[in-house]
Amino acid sequence: MTDDTVLGRARVEDRPELQEYYAKLEELSAGALWTVANDIEPWEPKSKSTPTLWNYEALRPLVLQAAELVTPQDAGRRVVWLANPSRREVSAAVGWLYSGLQIMLAGEWAPAHRHAAAALRFIIEGEGAYTVVDGERATLGAKDFVITPSGTWHDHGNEAKSGAAIWQDGLDIPFVNAMEANTYEVHGDGRQTAEGESNRSTASYTAAGLLPDTRWDRRYSPLLKYPFERSYEALGSLAEAQAPSPYDGYVLRFTNPTTGGHVMPTMGAQIQLLTPDEATQAHRHTGSVMYTVAKGEGHSVIGGKRFDWKENDIFCVPSWEVHEHANGSASEDAVLFSFNDLPVIESLGLYLERPFEDGDGHQEVTS
Amino acid sequence: MTDDTVLGRARVEDRPELQEYYAKLEELSAGALWTVANDIEPWEPKSKSTPTLWNYEALRPLVLQAAELVTPQDAGRRVVWLANPSRREVSAAVGWLYSGLQIMLAGEWAPAHRHAAAALRFIIEGEGAYTVVDGERATLGAKDFVITPSGTWHDHGNEAKSGAAIWQDGLDIPFVNAMEANTYEVHGDGRQTAEGESNRSTASYTAAGLLPDTRWDRRYSPLLKYPFERSYEALGSLAEAQAPSPYDGYVLRFTNPTTGGHVMPTMGAQIQLLTPDEATQAHRHTGSVMYTVAKGEGHSVIGGKRFDWKENDIFCVPSWEVHEHANGSASEDAVLFSFNDLPVIESLGLYLERPFEDGDGHQEVTS
Amino acid sequence: MTDDTVLGRARVEDRPELQEYYAKLEELSAGALWTVANDIEPWEPKSKSTPTLWNYEALRPLVLQAAELVTPQDAGRRVVWLANPSRREVSAAVGWLYSGLQIMLAGEWAPAHRHAAAALRFIIEGEGAYTVVDGERATLGAKDFVITPSGTWHDHGNEAKSGAAIWQDGLDIPFVNAMEANTYEVHGDGRQTAEGESNRSTASYTAAGLLPDTRWDRRYSPLLKYPFERSYEALGSLAEAQAPSPYDGYVLRFTNPTTGGHVMPTMGAQIQLLTPDEATQAHRHTGSVMYTVAKGEGHSVIGGKRFDWKENDIFCVPSWEVHEHANGSASEDAVLFSFNDLPVIESLGLYLERPFEDGDGHQEVTS
Amino acid sequence: MTDDTVLGRARVEDRPELQEYYAKLEELSAGALWTVANDIEPWEPKSKSTPTLWNYEALRPLVLQAAELVTPQDAGRRVVWLANPSRREVSAAVGWLYSGLQIMLAGEWAPAHRHAAAALRFIIEGEGAYTVVDGERATLGAKDFVITPSGTWHDHGNEAKSGAAIWQDGLDIPFVNAMEANTYEVHGDGRQTAEGESNRSTASYTAAGLLPDTRWDRRYSPLLKYPFERSYEALGSLAEAQAPSPYDGYVLRFTNPTTGGHVMPTMGAQIQLLTPDEATQAHRHTGSVMYTVAKGEGHSVIGGKRFDWKENDIFCVPSWEVHEHANGSASEDAVLFSFNDLPVIESLGLYLERPFEDGDGHQEVTS
Repeated sequence: MTDDTVLGRARVEDRPELQEYYAKLEELSAGALWTVANDIEPWEPKSKSTPTLWNYEALRPLVLQAAELVTPQDAGRRVVWLANPSRREVSAAVGWLYSGLQIMLAGEWAPAHRHAAAALRFIIEGEGAYTVVDGERATLGAKDFVITPSGTWHDHGNEAKSGAAIWQDGLDIPFVNAMEANTYEVHGDGRQTAEGESNRSTASYTAAGLLPDTRWDRRYSPLLKYPFERSYEALGSLAEAQAPSPYDGYVLRFTNPTTGGHVMPTMGAQIQLLTPDEATQAHRHTGSVMYTVAKGEGHSVIGGKRFDWKENDIFCVPSWEVHEHANGSASEDAVLFSFNDLPVIESLGLYLERPFEDGDGHQEVTS
Repeated sequence: MTDDTVLGRARVEDRPELQEYYAKLEELSAGALWTVANDIEPWEPKSKSTPTLWNYEALRPLVLQAAELVTPQDAGRRVVWLANPSRREVSAAVGWLYSGLQIMLAGEWAPAHRHAAAALRFIIEGEGAYTVVDGERATLGAKDFVITPSGTWHDHGNEAKSGAAIWQDGLDIPFVNAMEANTYEVHGDGRQTAEGESNRSTASYTAAGLLPDTRWDRRYSPLLKYPFERSYEALGSLAEAQAPSPYDGYVLRFTNPTTGGHVMPTMGAQIQLLTPDEATQAHRHTGSVMYTVAKGEGHSVIGGKRFDWKENDIFCVPSWEVHEHANGSASEDAVLFSFNDLPVIESLGLYLERPFEDGDGHQEVTS
Repeated sequence: MTDDTVLGRARVEDRPELQEYYAKLEELSAGALWTVANDIEPWEPKSKSTPTLWNYEALRPLVLQAAELVTPQDAGRRVVWLANPSRREVSAAVGWLYSGLQIMLAGEWAPAHRHAAAALRFIIEGEGAYTVVDGERATLGAKDFVITPSGTWHDHGNEAKSGAAIWQDGLDIPFVNAMEANTYEVHGDGRQTAEGESNRSTASYTAAGLLPDTRWDRRYSPLLKYPFERSYEALGSLAEAQAPSPYDGYVLRFTNPTTGGHVMPTMGAQIQLLTPDEATQAHRHTGSVMYTVAKGEGHSVIGGKRFDWKENDIFCVPSWEVHEHANGSASEDAVLFSFNDLPVIESLGLYLERPFEDGDGHQEVTS
Repeated sequence: MTDDTVLGRARVEDRPELQEYYAKLEELSAGALWTVANDIEPWEPKSKSTPTLWNYEALRPLVLQAAELVTPQDAGRRVVWLANPSRREVSAAVGWLYSGLQIMLAGEWAPAHRHAAAALRFIIEGEGAYTVVDGERATLGAKDFVITPSGTWHDHGNEAKSGAAIWQDGLDIPFVNAMEANTYEVHGDGRQTAEGESNRSTASYTAAGLLPDTRWDRRYSPLLKYPFERSYEALGSLAEAQAPSPYDGYVLRFTNPTTGGHVMPTMGAQIQLLTPDEATQAHRHTGSVMYTVAKGEGHSVIGGKRFDWKENDIFCVPSWEVHEHANGSASEDAVLFSFNDLPVIESLGLYLERPFEDGDGHQEVTS
């Protein structure tokens, strides 16, 4: 039912005396609910974001050019950010999620800071880059996934002899700003001194169901870097054991190994495998998602529009948009990394999911 | 430290070649982070809302007039909503919280519906009103607090022989819309049929630390109505046992008795007692709060501005605004009811609090 | 199915060569499982405790006599303990629960100590008694329920001018000893100095769903005393709102108001109302329970045996014994207080419950 | 302080009149607490179990002999159980934990059943064995760790062409019996039919912090088999990242990957690596532990007594016994698997730990 003339919806017709009344209300910082009720109480969720694909091949030269134009010390972060056409005013790539491509040349580093907003990285290319998060140094390999939780000190650099490292940042800055709770602090020393072994959390947390004896009471994962090799192997093993999800193929959620919950309270991430020729069914759910193609090529249909993608391309699925994915190869795997605001949606009881039941479960492509 | 020229902040000076570069980025749905970084990463939270007081005496005639102008069946809800001067575009009274004054004349009723957004009510005046929430009927007395959680069917009416009931609604509609997760459904029967005794949850959950043998696995309180008499007595008892909070006087949080957590996952509420002549210290915290004066008179200083209030007045404290309250009477209690978005703020790890340490802990009133 | 000759049970017949084999095993601190398997893997739970009623009228003179024979300082605690006929060796009244009757004459006090075992009290008679638990002083009125959680310092006294106070102690001493985790410490000062107001937690936590702003992270309830008047009123209110439980009449669980969980991790308690002439259906469940008659008279049938009780009598229901209760009066309420080990049973996933389905749901009384 | 003559302890001297009094109490199923108080309230935990080592080389021939003497179908389970010299009457190996060595010849199988008690297995030798737990078939390799949680159907067999498989069983039967909550059921079909792929949970849960999209709400781990290869690699990786625990070397706890908690609510398990020549410091804690030597040789000192061990030997550390371990090799790793009742101890708030602070942190060996 989506008929605004039924009992239970606002259906007051305008009259001159109402206009007078509305004017009086406005003077007292008030309004008549029925003039806005149907707009603010939609029958179904309506996203303000536009399904968008960012072509990495096209963006890469501009990212490289940034390195010629500004230094990381002056930029704070030298990043080309991904602007959703309808969310530019809140600096979001989709919903309340920010994303961008950061470039770090050999020998460069960016100054240490921390903020209430949470961050994550997905490494696109290059060797030699590292990040230091609250004193733990992590080396960054292609397609690794790394978290920088709310309130942790972090700085990055590139120790390679030559070349550039490029990674994708994901942050909840728009959300934390919307919640009016962001803070920012610069580190007095410019850069942190790393303690202990590099990648020590990645070496300490390796196998499922095996935990070191660590007292950990923070609200995020003690495992900072999830190496791609490990994730890809886990997907392969899963694919041998089970049937795929109809909507996602084989999918693994990145979690805090000490709780089984999301890696951070405001942003989650997952990685999924589409086996050769696999095409998923369409569905919709609340929550906003940013995808990065970690491997392979294929396409997604989002809200009836087809987006073709290949390795390193980035695209978004806004909340409640119908979407489906297809591997374009008959012989190679396709792998999608994605991050999302589902920890927020789920913890507040706002998660809804619905299969797309028209036709054969696939959308008609309209553009 | 709040100096945007330090290492760790964006401090790129504009140059013609950068403008060209920015134009190229815009074509690819991208941007340069350093042009917006300092704006979107503020040193401290900055609220978009304006501290505002709604004078009940001034609004009441307009609320009564609404009853002459529209029927509840045509209005859906016949409500005068409280518009924060700087949040009108999202229909919010403060932050992402909606509030309004609903009027129900003797013999009237409003149609049943449900939505993903959560609602609560604080009764201002009138006898004879009731609400039905998922089949449980609750009678509404002055200053009672009632919840209508996300997804519950609800309808209201007034069974008095004459007169009007007026209550304050609080909803998280702006927030759930911002999260792009709102839904709406009208009840096929127009009104629900109440089951069992009226006020049965209020009679089943009476004393602290005593629970009936109910299997309850929903994410909200099974106790729907918190009668004012009970809350006020509890405040009085607390005041005999303990010292007051420096920032809030004697304060009790409304909770889900089966968990000790907030009454609903997205909105919380509390009630506080300022004893005669009590004036609290000033502090600030993240989270947005709407206050209603349940009893007495006094004033609050919010962001340096003084707001004088008396019974039934409503005012808001935006996130991170410094605030303090004072009872204006040397002989009578003042009681403030308030609701807030703290369940969101707390569950996502975004709560920050800071005492106001200038001078003697009180703000200078600047307007 | 309870036939030990079926496939899946041990059914090895004895032979001489087996006896030789068993002897060799015994030398190596070993044994053959099949010789004990059916005993240690029963088809259903089998309690070692005997259903028992302790007649208060008969015990009271002996409790009073204790006061003539020993001082509280020499006894440590001057208590007549309730010995289950088949659990004397572990000092238990039922299962792994200890109980006893403690007497404190006017002007006496007992020295402060603490232990890993948890304790609770139900006051039987007398005015003027008090307990101090971790610095909070609680006055003890007839039928009040008080907790003394694991690890808290506690001492008791009687400040009346004359007369004796008698209360029932409940402890998990046998259980904590069985788990080999008990500790004991005496307080250097003999007695604690009480801090703040008496009964301050009872005054701070009064109404359901209203919590003071206390940081509380211990594993037990911050509410130390649950006054009988409050509990009895809550039962009366519940009885007006709902139908009774078929097995328990109207029942309220004592809980930690900050979590809704049991008052302590190892012992729980509840209070139940049998309205005039009410007779419950029979059922059985795992977990051991000690009942005290707080009000009225009636009888219980436990494992086919009838136990008549009146005010202040104490009786036990061992684990998995079928039981049912009946109010013996056509005009007066009967109220049963009880404590149990259900927090252990439930938290470890060992709770089982089964209605008694023979005949009309009532047992045949066989003795 | 451990002096039973101090204020706060029972210190009543016997007198004839007291004996008379005690006799009267006994007639009423009662007793005088002060006659038992100091016994049941010890200053520190006192275990009833004896530190014991079971020599596998000595036991193995008797285990093999069992296969000649009885069939698995007649034995129910053909197991040589490990009897703690002072816990034989409750069929325990230590505390309330049962353990035994089960033998399954090529081609044999044991009938399916289930019970409230929980079980786990550690495979000692042999190939070809399998277990089926609630329909999932797991192949059993040497040193693999497998769980059979409370209430799950399970049956075992050996599909090898020749030879015998031997594994160690661990169960909480004594505890569940003590709690009077055990149940037993035989499977109507004799054996379960396995569903889906073998080892599918082991293939689905491989990497730390990566979870498949499974709805799992049971109180135990969905991961049934933890292969030794994976655990041993994880220990090696941990040893490169961190410093060892002073009391345990490098230690990993087996956990439920969906919660980070123990694998089952009543029994936990861990695996620890002692690097060449490593000798730990001594400490004590509540909770009972059964160790099996998975690799290498060395010794442990338990309660001042030295136990030398090599691969496949089994030994126990009773609650609160001081203990320390040493790898006996200067070149090879030693690895200890162990299971325990720590989930019970921890969830009930009964965990205590204390370093052994005499001398240099090592016990004097007295036997």
